[in-house]
Amino acid sequence: MGNRLTDETDTPVAEDIIDFEIGTPDLRMFPRQAWAKYLKAAAENMPAGSYDYGDIRGEEALRAEISAYLHRTRGMRCHPGQIMIVSGSSEGFALIAQTLRDQFDGIYLEDPTIEFTQHIFRGHRYRVTPVAVDDSGMKLHELASWDRGHLMLLTPSHQFPGGGILPIQRRQHAVRLAEEAGSYLIEDDYDGDFRLKGVPVPPLQTLSPDRVIYVGTFSKTLAPGLRLGFLVLPRHLVRPVADLREALNFRSPSVPQIALALLMRDGRLDRHIHKMKNVYRGRRNLLIEALKRHFGDRAVIQGDEAGMHLQVEFAGVPAGIDWSNAPAYGVRVYGVEDYCLIKENYTRHVLLGYGNLPEEIIEPGIARLRRFVEETDCRI
Amino acid sequence: MGNRLTDETDTPVAEDIIDFEIGTPDLRMFPRQAWAKYLKAAAENMPAGSYDYGDIRGEEALRAEISAYLHRTRGMRCHPGQIMIVSGSSEGFALIAQTLRDQFDGIYLEDPTIEFTQHIFRGHRYRVTPVAVDDSGMKLHELASWDRGHLMLLTPSHQFPGGGILPIQRRQHAVRLAEEAGSYLIEDDYDGDFRLKGVPVPPLQTLSPDRVIYVGTFSKTLAPGLRLGFLVLPRHLVRPVADLREALNFRSPSVPQIALALLMRDGRLDRHIHKMKNVYRGRRNLLIEALKRHFGDRAVIQGDEAGMHLQVEFAGVPAGIDWSNAPAYGVRVYGVEDYCLIKENYTRHVLLGYGNLPEEIIEPGIARLRRFVEETDCRI
Repeated sequence: MGNRLTDETDTPVAEDIIDFEIGTPDLRMFPRQAWAKYLKAAAENMPAGSYDYGDIRGEEALRAEISAYLHRTRGMRCHPGQIMIVSGSSEGFALIAQTLRDQFDGIYLEDPTIEFTQHIFRGHRYRVTPVAVDDSGMKLHELASWDRGHLMLLTPSHQFPGGGILPIQRRQHAVRLAEEAGSYLIEDDYDGDFRLKGVPVPPLQTLSPDRVIYVGTFSKTLAPGLRLGFLVLPRHLVRPVADLREALNFRSPSVPQIALALLMRDGRLDRHIHKMKNVYRGRRNLLIEALKRHFGDRAVIQGDEAGMHLQVEFAGVPAGIDWSNAPAYGVRVYGVEDYCLIKENYTRHVLLGYGNLPEEIIEPGIARLRRFVEETDCRI
Repeated sequence: MGNRLTDETDTPVAEDIIDFEIGTPDLRMFPRQAWAKYLKAAAENMPAGSYDYGDIRGEEALRAEISAYLHRTRGMRCHPGQIMIVSGSSEGFALIAQTLRDQFDGIYLEDPTIEFTQHIFRGHRYRVTPVAVDDSGMKLHELASWDRGHLMLLTPSHQFPGGGILPIQRRQHAVRLAEEAGSYLIEDDYDGDFRLKGVPVPPLQTLSPDRVIYVGTFSKTLAPGLRLGFLVLPRHLVRPVADLREALNFRSPSVPQIALALLMRDGRLDRHIHKMKNVYRGRRNLLIEALKRHFGDRAVIQGDEAGMHLQVEFAGVPAGIDWSNAPAYGVRVYGVEDYCLIKENYTRHVLLGYGNLPEEIIEPGIARLRRFVEETDCRI
């Protein structure tokens, strides 16, 4: 997700850097033959009307598949009419932010958090109130009272970036606070399909369907380049969000929606997720082994129960370490400080993504990271 | 573009209404076999990296094709690096509105105008200042001075909805005002490919590349359901717009972009536009004949030089006529009042779209409209 604007010469960045990129699934294993087949089928066979401005919520065939999928995999009950297909979860957050701006002017965000959600809400003039996280996600018990003008955004199934899974007591607490305040929890389930161990916890949405806006994406299960996400809206919010989207004339292209419906209907998505879980589990294990081999107890690993990245605290490294210098050692890692609303608490923490990383370069990458840490350690 | 939220029962609306829908091209003639072929080719052959978050401006292959196309068809000179692919022109307007909000807080809009642009700019807290139009587009000469906090949005190649083509004197005037004010003209060339008679006037962008933001779309040349549009940005605005879009994590899906690049490269888009110009010219002539036959001099036709719709003033009908009652007579037309910022000036004007209307129902549609007008005339 780097913002590199080349002048179209596209000079490749140094080839040899091992990039523990986060947020990108394995793109070589994307089922591109099936995707190509279904895109073609959709483009050829869908009714002419699907090439027009369609239902503002997106193609009904896809919304029906998603409804069935959420029920099958997460026990969620929602009518296809409550689902809105969006061009990536980002558009979903923007629609929520703008629709609810008349009623709310603040939002509780986990700290650290993904960058773009805060930009989206700040762009609509929300005040951002950070709430700290620990190994189990947002520390909801430390939130003494709920400011009534606030929404709350949570990543309960795999806190981004720390990786904590929000326990049921905190979930119930969050729901109770939101219900009492007449507010909403926005549940960002960005990689909820990749639970790698333990028992799945049902989404927040199942606890309070009228107070939880569920945000899903296919960027992790399939590919970010598809730009396909969706909202599950409380019934009373369907009309206001739809009216806003219609007024802005924001829509998602129809052919890929129908192709995805076909891919889901033939069981291909389920099989892909099942396969990728094993792949990611294998990579995660290789990564953990490499970290133990090279760093021993100095590497404190977090967030290894789900997803496609780990958070690692390197105990004892200097607080002033600048992780963005690691590429000089042939490896790129992501400092957690960059995701922090309140600074200086995560200087020793990095994120290591393994979603799109070939197995054979995981160990060499960690070996390079060790050289970087050792030499930085000595020099500071 | 109607906002009908069915509860998924999708009861078809009365089959027999002849709908002079505006803004939709002929969807049955959309080159769907070619589109299907190129989607498949793109999905199969593009590099794996194109399934990732890519260049925030969109696929370079498509931007290069668009750059060449704009030069070939409009004499525009722009580097592919100045082009940003967006998910329909709506997203383009939203990015412009948000990027420039720190410097500007108002916008001049043509009155009447398309609805969604005002919603987008108002959503970012711009004040909207209407400027009246006549047969030749915005009456720029009536704008005594330019409020420096204002942007201006124009549809110079085919004013929406009136259909006027902005003459060179008004273009030069607009450019001079914007340059003096250090402001920008936003040039919405929503259907500039369908000039049906007369000599093409070059886009505003060619007069002042640093002060004009050009907004293009493939919704009219191909299909709205593709959701593909683009911006041509002044060089100094590329970085700020790209940074904003990156911060919000808004992108367009990659496969359709590459498919469109392939379609353009093989000359298929040019051939489709050439073919459709003849089709639309034929339908326009049928529509004008039918209007003359049924209404004679009472139907004053405007905007017949370009595009896929006409504006018609029905002289002598009561000012209180409610065009939304026409479906009771089996025909749907679009009252211009609905597009007006200042009301009561266009009560006798309707829009008649012919882009997606089969030839054989044009005359019967106007016959039904005549019955509606005659009976309304008597009753009011």
